[in-house]
Amino acid sequence: MDSQEFREAAKAAIDEITEYYDNVASHRVVSDVKPGYLRPLLPASAPLDPEPWSAIHADVHYPAALAEMYSNTFNGAHFNWICSPAVTELETVVMDWLAQALALPECYLSGGSTHGGGVIHGSASEAILTVMCAARDKYLNAVTAGLPADSEEKEEATWKHRSKLVAMGSAGAHSSTKKAAQILGVRFVTVPIDEDASFAMTGAAVAKTVADLRARGLEPFYLTASLGTTDVAAVDDFAGIAEVLSPTAGTAQDIWVHVDAAYAGSALILEENQPLTTPLAHFHSFNFNPHKWLLTTFDCSAVWVRSRAWLISALSIKPHYLRNEFSDNELVTDYRDWQIPLGRRFRSLKLWFVLRSYGIRGLQAHIRRGVVLGESLEAKLKSRPDLFSIFTPARFGLVTLRVAGADEDEVNARTERVYEGINADGEFYLTSTMVNGKFAIRVCTGVERVAEEHVQRLFDILVERAGAEVGKKA
Amino acid sequence: MDSQEFREAAKAAIDEITEYYDNVASHRVVSDVKPGYLRPLLPASAPLDPEPWSAIHADVHYPAALAEMYSNTFNGAHFNWICSPAVTELETVVMDWLAQALALPECYLSGGSTHGGGVIHGSASEAILTVMCAARDKYLNAVTAGLPADSEEKEEATWKHRSKLVAMGSAGAHSSTKKAAQILGVRFVTVPIDEDASFAMTGAAVAKTVADLRARGLEPFYLTASLGTTDVAAVDDFAGIAEVLSPTAGTAQDIWVHVDAAYAGSALILEENQPLTTPLAHFHSFNFNPHKWLLTTFDCSAVWVRSRAWLISALSIKPHYLRNEFSDNELVTDYRDWQIPLGRRFRSLKLWFVLRSYGIRGLQAHIRRGVVLGESLEAKLKSRPDLFSIFTPARFGLVTLRVAGADEDEVNARTERVYEGINADGEFYLTSTMVNGKFAIRVCTGVERVAEEHVQRLFDILVERAGAEVGKKA
Repeated sequence: MDSQEFREAAKAAIDEITEYYDNVASHRVVSDVKPGYLRPLLPASAPLDPEPWSAIHADVHYPAALAEMYSNTFNGAHFNWICSPAVTELETVVMDWLAQALALPECYLSGGSTHGGGVIHGSASEAILTVMCAARDKYLNAVTAGLPADSEEKEEATWKHRSKLVAMGSAGAHSSTKKAAQILGVRFVTVPIDEDASFAMTGAAVAKTVADLRARGLEPFYLTASLGTTDVAAVDDFAGIAEVLSPTAGTAQDIWVHVDAAYAGSALILEENQPLTTPLAHFHSFNFNPHKWLLTTFDCSAVWVRSRAWLISALSIKPHYLRNEFSDNELVTDYRDWQIPLGRRFRSLKLWFVLRSYGIRGLQAHIRRGVVLGESLEAKLKSRPDLFSIFTPARFGLVTLRVAGADEDEVNARTERVYEGINADGEFYLTSTMVNGKFAIRVCTGVERVAEEHVQRLFDILVERAGAEVGKKA
Repeated sequence: MDSQEFREAAKAAIDEITEYYDNVASHRVVSDVKPGYLRPLLPASAPLDPEPWSAIHADVHYPAALAEMYSNTFNGAHFNWICSPAVTELETVVMDWLAQALALPECYLSGGSTHGGGVIHGSASEAILTVMCAARDKYLNAVTAGLPADSEEKEEATWKHRSKLVAMGSAGAHSSTKKAAQILGVRFVTVPIDEDASFAMTGAAVAKTVADLRARGLEPFYLTASLGTTDVAAVDDFAGIAEVLSPTAGTAQDIWVHVDAAYAGSALILEENQPLTTPLAHFHSFNFNPHKWLLTTFDCSAVWVRSRAWLISALSIKPHYLRNEFSDNELVTDYRDWQIPLGRRFRSLKLWFVLRSYGIRGLQAHIRRGVVLGESLEAKLKSRPDLFSIFTPARFGLVTLRVAGADEDEVNARTERVYEGINADGEFYLTSTMVNGKFAIRVCTGVERVAEEHVQRLFDILVERAGAEVGKKA
């Protein structure tokens, strides 16, 4: 869809929206469809090719913007099935489509063997808080399962365990894990990462952290692993982590592993990245944000769990005014029990429009473009070893780099000055990171509308500024 | 703005949006404005009259829909000031405008004496979880303040207190308070309400609950009071509650009181309701949802606190990649520290468009219409005492009613049958409530596009169905 097609489609949507409001009184106020009505009406998976393919311009996100217009028109709070069956059922179908497109293990599908499923949250922070809450309750239920229900003994034991709970995340995990622990009032401990392992969290580091915590009488119950860390897009060693946690898997001491792929998860749509998902079958939950790199407008964070009962058990409450025959008979999904808020927006419409407008192949082309641009920047930087060192190589469209210098202090100082100079100019806005005392510039090419000409222009500016720092002509 | 005006304005917006994307590369990527740049450019309060007044049709919500179109165009995550200064600064200004329009005590204004301020969340559930989290940390900090920082003694004392914390809400408070307590892992206790006090929570009931809890060694730290309960729109006795909590106000045992006005808060825009807000100066936080009754599209929940430091202290974390000179020097507001998620949508644009398009007077006219329609239905129901009893009188556009009968069981059974019959027809969708064993039908007239003709039609249907139940001709 190019900008002219968007212009026409959007204006047609405006006409529909206006007519919808003008005639709203003539619509039925409550739906008379039956639970499960929607899935048979839709394809079993997202289209490979866009509809129509010829219209794809992989660098615009108009389909999601159109979906938002409709979503705001329906303007519901959509907190249970009976409010708006289509909102609920489309979300289930679209999240299955998306899980298939990313090659998530079948346990994360709504019809999978472990009764998993997906839900759309607003942000990765909410996703992580929600799964950490479910992990906590799952753990507390398991470790006190032997005690009589509602007994004082059980109450006391639960409080004793609560006071010892530890949530873990690697030093490279996004700060939202620490924030979630702070909100839930549980301890947070960092698993160290090492430049030698490309800043990935290893099984050995997890094993050591868990052993140290247990030796201190503490109870690790949750771990965030990352598929693409915020700083440098590192991928943790999932197989190694699964291996060291396997002795307690399925026992009361089972440690919930959540994989946060907020940014890089979109790259799982490329077949070459899909082997990364195999070990997820040993873990408990997964999220990524289509609003970051999958051409979907903010906000849209996709979350899957291996067993939906974990979420519902932690988050369900049933006041009278939310009861209805469909929910009471467990015929339907009430997504309010899969999230923190009660109300929810019709976000699945965005994913539905995006998946159908681009098709899987269109989305693959878009993601590959960002990956290739990152590799292009890396190649350019490598052509000037007198000026730059690659801190971490191009991965998922992210390159991090440092300016050459005699020692760590000089490298840090020069890199920071180049970074601040470029941002002050206002033509590009870069971000930076400080990992194990090393300051590096981050350049992300996995962004809509970034093209080779922008990468070249940024490289030229980097050369000019780094050249001035290093004292050579550019 | 009528539907034709919306149609034209929306199509003009589409043209602007298309041009924005087509020329996005020519814009400066990071803003060069200075903190505080926006407030001097805007009026000090929302306009009394709409712009232009003649265009107001109080029953459409187009301005918010237009704002959503622009908001989705800018499509940022807006988590700190530097990302998008306008998003932050407009929110501060608009939340001050709104606080003034609702006559909230000055302590809730951003420039107020206690450094309060407002923030927009997605839903009341998030608002309540967020303030309960802040209340918990404020309480724990206060009761352990005498112990040395980072000492084992302090750590132990904190855990001892954590295990005794109790969040309270009346039996009429929305279920989101119970859900927030469940998420935070603190006890939840209900304060009883009584039909004799019109289902309002009284100071005496709070005092008794608090005394009972303390006698059991527990530590009540938080209370949700309601301005318009979900079931019957009751208003709790704020003055009485403030009075009984005054002995511990400002001490380490201070109980945080949050006033949830999710639905009825919009009615504070009417001067006759504004005396209700005076006692809020003794409380800690307040929220209402403009998306319920103030012509704003879902989602938009407005929250104010008396001291913003309480939120920031509970929710702030500062990883390297979120740092920047403006935040580090505390020159600006970073709303990510006032909420659970990191990213945030540009929701203040909706409120800004709504306040300017309708003006305070236009919004007052809209709210008054819903109130008057509720009174109209109540009068009609009272004209048929043979068929109906008023369970709770029209308040904020909500009437609850029961069908006549010989005893409570017959009344409940008849009322439920009338309720289910009407919903099965699909012309109207009513909700119900069960309060102290009494089943009642809820009719809410505080909704856009509900007009006298709909109230009359609903009354006719109620008469027909209740007449059949009571065994008389309608």
